[in-house]
Amino acid sequence: MGVTEQAQAARRASYRLATLSTAVKDRALELVAKAIESHAREILAENLKDQQEARRQGLGEALFKRLLLSEDKIAQMVASVRDVIRLPDPVGRRLQARELDDGLTLTQVRVPIGVVGVIFESRPDALVQISTLALKSGNAVILKGGSEALHSNRVLFNLIRQAAESADPAFREALQLVETREHIRELLQLDSLIDLMIPRGSNELVKSIQENTRIPVLGHSEGVCHLYVDRDADLDMAVELGFDAKCQYPAVCNAIETLLVHADAAAEYLPRMAARLKGVELRGDERTRRIIPAREATAADWRAEYNDLILAVAVVDSLEQAIEHINTCGSHHTDAIATRNPAAARRFLAGVDSASVMWNCSTRFADGYRYGLGAEVGISTGKVHARGPVGLEGLTSTKYLVEGHGHLVAGYADGSRRFTHKDLP
Amino acid sequence: MGVTEQAQAARRASYRLATLSTAVKDRALELVAKAIESHAREILAENLKDQQEARRQGLGEALFKRLLLSEDKIAQMVASVRDVIRLPDPVGRRLQARELDDGLTLTQVRVPIGVVGVIFESRPDALVQISTLALKSGNAVILKGGSEALHSNRVLFNLIRQAAESADPAFREALQLVETREHIRELLQLDSLIDLMIPRGSNELVKSIQENTRIPVLGHSEGVCHLYVDRDADLDMAVELGFDAKCQYPAVCNAIETLLVHADAAAEYLPRMAARLKGVELRGDERTRRIIPAREATAADWRAEYNDLILAVAVVDSLEQAIEHINTCGSHHTDAIATRNPAAARRFLAGVDSASVMWNCSTRFADGYRYGLGAEVGISTGKVHARGPVGLEGLTSTKYLVEGHGHLVAGYADGSRRFTHKDLP
Repeated sequence: MGVTEQAQAARRASYRLATLSTAVKDRALELVAKAIESHAREILAENLKDQQEARRQGLGEALFKRLLLSEDKIAQMVASVRDVIRLPDPVGRRLQARELDDGLTLTQVRVPIGVVGVIFESRPDALVQISTLALKSGNAVILKGGSEALHSNRVLFNLIRQAAESADPAFREALQLVETREHIRELLQLDSLIDLMIPRGSNELVKSIQENTRIPVLGHSEGVCHLYVDRDADLDMAVELGFDAKCQYPAVCNAIETLLVHADAAAEYLPRMAARLKGVELRGDERTRRIIPAREATAADWRAEYNDLILAVAVVDSLEQAIEHINTCGSHHTDAIATRNPAAARRFLAGVDSASVMWNCSTRFADGYRYGLGAEVGISTGKVHARGPVGLEGLTSTKYLVEGHGHLVAGYADGSRRFTHKDLP
Repeated sequence: MGVTEQAQAARRASYRLATLSTAVKDRALELVAKAIESHAREILAENLKDQQEARRQGLGEALFKRLLLSEDKIAQMVASVRDVIRLPDPVGRRLQARELDDGLTLTQVRVPIGVVGVIFESRPDALVQISTLALKSGNAVILKGGSEALHSNRVLFNLIRQAAESADPAFREALQLVETREHIRELLQLDSLIDLMIPRGSNELVKSIQENTRIPVLGHSEGVCHLYVDRDADLDMAVELGFDAKCQYPAVCNAIETLLVHADAAAEYLPRMAARLKGVELRGDERTRRIIPAREATAADWRAEYNDLILAVAVVDSLEQAIEHINTCGSHHTDAIATRNPAAARRFLAGVDSASVMWNCSTRFADGYRYGLGAEVGISTGKVHARGPVGLEGLTSTKYLVEGHGHLVAGYADGSRRFTHKDLP
């Protein structure tokens, strides 16, 4: 079966999946959890094949680590499947209801988005996570994992599909695995069969997907986040915010890459911040370097995502200049202000055009789990469909249902009938 | 100024527009209404130039009609601007609020989408409608009108921009007009500057935009809508529904193109329906033609959008077969079932994958005004961002605001603090 046929099969199955009850989907998920649990030894054996191949090919240590499965990791996988069972099913949720006229009602409800394509790198647990989220939300899913995890992905995929299939036969066509890089190119052309692409991996992966398809892409290629320390900031707090946002986990997309400081606060704040950021390489503009030692920042530093213990630092003359810098050089992901001045905070929250904008807290909070969304499908910096950390709702669309008793448009068109348009509870 | 510079200016202005109060935007709209009102004679004079040019070039009568302005039409334009003033401002509306921990709150609010590109054909009132909707929702907008309305568009655009500008200078850069066809190609490349494209016009226009850009497109290229008459239908009602949905206004996207009839109802229903549809050309499958006279339908008829007094008719053996036909051959726009059986209706409403699905009412209700959305930005058959008739909300995105008191992630990461995740009213 070629990739197009796989996508057609997924599309066919998606219509059936849209009508499955929560109970059937949860039963499928429980069978998936049990299947992974009871086949742990087989999964580890297949993972060992990938490890041996990775060693032979001299895969880097970081990638090798992400590939590695263990009994503990498998137990975590199983627990994560059971977490998905406990999430509320978004499908069927009523978003609005309106009486259009006597006996004629409009209801808008959540429905599965249909067919989701997922392209991920190395980590085999990503396959489990995303396919169970898709299953819970009634979506068919086409998975393409990293070739370095070929055997692990294959065994996990087959276990998941077989288990789900025993709850409902539609899951056989609804879950599709694609294995070669050439197939990605083919997938990206199938905009009539695939409703949403979710790339999970490096910036380069996400960017290359975004640039090569007309299918909507959920994700972000960059996280160039800022902390702006206002003239009215609590400087003790601002020092700790800068430290948490840069150092608590520097390799992630919601860590800050640039620190902006109001000129009136710079002389007092910057030396204290620099002391707290010991071990972090600072790259400063001219005014920063007059106050603290730092490498000279180049134009590229203001748009750089280091994902490392490096921080660009600039002094600005006003809140407005900070906002303009962030909107122009940032990646519209997550940006924060430290200030005691509520008016300044309001201007910042309204003026910064980012998915998450924060006041007196760390940018590191921008995350689906921390936001209480239950599970994170991804973080989106796009402005359509979903923005910011995206939960299960990101895998849904909506549908309008209109129910009448033989209502015709003719009467409204000729003016003999009028709409009532009353919102219903 | 080239198109890219225009888009950059619009992007710059969009940040300012996002922070304007409803009062300022409504004042700008009132000035726009007054400007159009007081310059009616000038607008008509410019429109006359377009008419003369159109006559010289032998423009078709239908297009000529859509181009034509009159004092009445100008009064309608002015009234439509004042209608937009009365619409509630979606920007700033709170969608959800949650306490993450003591003193740390998350709020999701509506924000303008940013920069919207609009490409429309002939009708100069489309320029007024879409630019005032964009203005109300705080969006910058780049407009490209049909070349046949060049003078009309130009005078209307200048009046709108000047009027809006006197309420806030940001509107000068926020409203941009583009005049040549070559510029469309350039616009479609600007996916980093334009957030959403809205084509308004023929199927061909919409399709060509969708196929030539990575910018999200709001719209639908086709409306292949169905009425399915179930075995348990009230046949009197089903006859009137078929007549209204086909004949009340056959040229529009929500008129039906295919009628599906359950085999058990066909012998009684089809002759009555055919009598009611006198003057409509019927194209039937074999079983239909055994009951009523009709031309033989070809494979192309099941996917055809006639926008005319032509109807494809097929007999099906089951509700499931009807659903499958609609999902496979339809355009996922609007489809209806006529039945007295609630269980059958529920299966149809859940199983048909269309933006609007209806029970015992005419497909012609699928419309923003009839749905009570206030104004219609367009009808979308896409599954991301917005689906079905789209109101002012379709010109918005969302943003997460997080407000704390120096909250750091470190405490939650090391387990010393826990999230409370309490939904707030």
